[in-house]
Amino acid sequence: MLKEKIAFREPTIQLAHGAGGKASRRLIEGLLAPYLNVSELNDAAYVQIDQAQIAFTADSFVVNPLRFPGGSIGELAINGTVNDLAMGGAKPLAIVTTFIIEAGLETEILEAEIKAMHEAAEKANVAIVGGDTKVVEHQKADKLFITTAGIGLADPRVNLSAGRVKQGDKIILSGPIGDHGITILFARGELDLEADIKSDTRAVWPFVSKLIDAAAPGLKWMRDPTRGGMATALNELARDAKVAIMLEEEAIQVNPEVRGACEILGLDPMHIANEGQFIAVVSEEYADAALKAIQQVPGGEQAAIIGEVFESDRHIVLSRSSYGGTRAIDMLVGDPLPRIC
Amino acid sequence: MLKEKIAFREPTIQLAHGAGGKASRRLIEGLLAPYLNVSELNDAAYVQIDQAQIAFTADSFVVNPLRFPGGSIGELAINGTVNDLAMGGAKPLAIVTTFIIEAGLETEILEAEIKAMHEAAEKANVAIVGGDTKVVEHQKADKLFITTAGIGLADPRVNLSAGRVKQGDKIILSGPIGDHGITILFARGELDLEADIKSDTRAVWPFVSKLIDAAAPGLKWMRDPTRGGMATALNELARDAKVAIMLEEEAIQVNPEVRGACEILGLDPMHIANEGQFIAVVSEEYADAALKAIQQVPGGEQAAIIGEVFESDRHIVLSRSSYGGTRAIDMLVGDPLPRIC
Repeated sequence: MLKEKIAFREPTIQLAHGAGGKASRRLIEGLLAPYLNVSELNDAAYVQIDQAQIAFTADSFVVNPLRFPGGSIGELAINGTVNDLAMGGAKPLAIVTTFIIEAGLETEILEAEIKAMHEAAEKANVAIVGGDTKVVEHQKADKLFITTAGIGLADPRVNLSAGRVKQGDKIILSGPIGDHGITILFARGELDLEADIKSDTRAVWPFVSKLIDAAAPGLKWMRDPTRGGMATALNELARDAKVAIMLEEEAIQVNPEVRGACEILGLDPMHIANEGQFIAVVSEEYADAALKAIQQVPGGEQAAIIGEVFESDRHIVLSRSSYGGTRAIDMLVGDPLPRIC
Repeated sequence: MLKEKIAFREPTIQLAHGAGGKASRRLIEGLLAPYLNVSELNDAAYVQIDQAQIAFTADSFVVNPLRFPGGSIGELAINGTVNDLAMGGAKPLAIVTTFIIEAGLETEILEAEIKAMHEAAEKANVAIVGGDTKVVEHQKADKLFITTAGIGLADPRVNLSAGRVKQGDKIILSGPIGDHGITILFARGELDLEADIKSDTRAVWPFVSKLIDAAAPGLKWMRDPTRGGMATALNELARDAKVAIMLEEEAIQVNPEVRGACEILGLDPMHIANEGQFIAVVSEEYADAALKAIQQVPGGEQAAIIGEVFESDRHIVLSRSSYGGTRAIDMLVGDPLPRIC
């Protein structure tokens, strides 16, 4: 796909370049892509081996703090990579992992994360088959960074491409947004607030698997809205598919604690990272079957059709409130929440 | 393979646990393996997909300094992973990479490494197909850490297993040892010494590919002696294969600068990391063909048969000097050279 050429001109790398929003896009498209043949912020790449299409992906995890309500860096490292494969329409097969450890880290902290990875992998039905460990001097890393790479078997029934997304296609969201990001914010203890909220980290393949069974011919695009949130994911879709998107505000689930925290902090839940939700674009014909398939998997009850695609010269995301007002939803700019994953 | 049970009892993780020697073995076998199904310090794991055997591996790179004579972290990150695949008898196919960047890193430093990765990948004939970027706060990482994961297609003619290694098998080494580790030591500028020496970083698949063509039925075990050096790799072989190994000291190439530096510093070249060498164990019948195949690839001229396997209840590595004296070569203990790769 032909795209405007982006140059990366900033003299240094800053936190916003890792936040998943506009600055990340500039870094990746302006600096990494020209050398690495990495065309965009894709979730997984494909490699053809014999008759099989293998999805292949890697992510580093630097979340701070290491443990938070609902999860931890180890669990995130498994679910994050498993979810990138799922978003590529691929059944997760195997994971390899590396640890970068700050010298002096308590063994029990490392052990807890290894346990968390083991449990998350069992739950996601994926094997951890290899690993590597590096240790750096005290204060040359922040306790523990985990990287996971995963391979998965792409389902041959699935054909994911922004180019297939057309007017009338429905946008399905798997559940409430913003839980993960706001949980991390609270877990850092930097706010004089408390909330009964936990990360949504989970593997989404069980939902995706049923979605594929029910609606593969109509399934056109998927993304897990992690860094940059739903707003960023949908803006990337609008840009890549050269369409506009209209969301129905009241169809998007936001837990009251997340909504409250966002109001106090001046954040938009649409910009907050999720670790257990995904967006699927499905043709009108298959939308109801797709939605039902997701809702029937435990944990998918809150899935909803939240909007639809329409033709426009302006490749934007709009959101319509129940009062009839419409606002533009932009990509994330800057980094309100560094090291969210 | 049944093994003595190792428990990890140290209260904290220290540099030596990342050095590739005895402490690393305790960490991996005592703490990681029980949870992660990672049985040992293997170079690559295998995943069966259709008729194909896929080798899958990942490594993090934290080398300090980022650039050094003969290479850089980016080049190392490609060659290291490509070499892990080669050691699994697998032709490298594709790589995904992640960056953990310290906020404030100069863009030109990152750009230089991305370029280095691109060039190394071209040279190794492997595609970089995806990536991820995280940024952490200033002083929460040391400039730049790179992780690469690779998949490769295992050559069906190859059957690598320590269990196949038997008395009379020959040990082949691809070239001189110690260049990488000593180069890093000099590059840190901590010594009042200078030497005309550079890292041996390179992809070894071209050698391995010819070795397989010439001697696949006799090829039993391979390893690239990185952290912990040749001594550690061969001690692991002796332990896993339940054999002893006798090396001929004068057959092992050590460049004069490396030998000199090791003498001054009280280091053994056998413990120094290499990034472009490998060890192959080949049956006596195929040993000459294997050696010739490696020597005929440019850069392989210094390959040599450096020793052989013999039966023993003591699973040790011995080295015989030209004067007839014999010494035991132990695994690396401690970490004389942290962050070598």
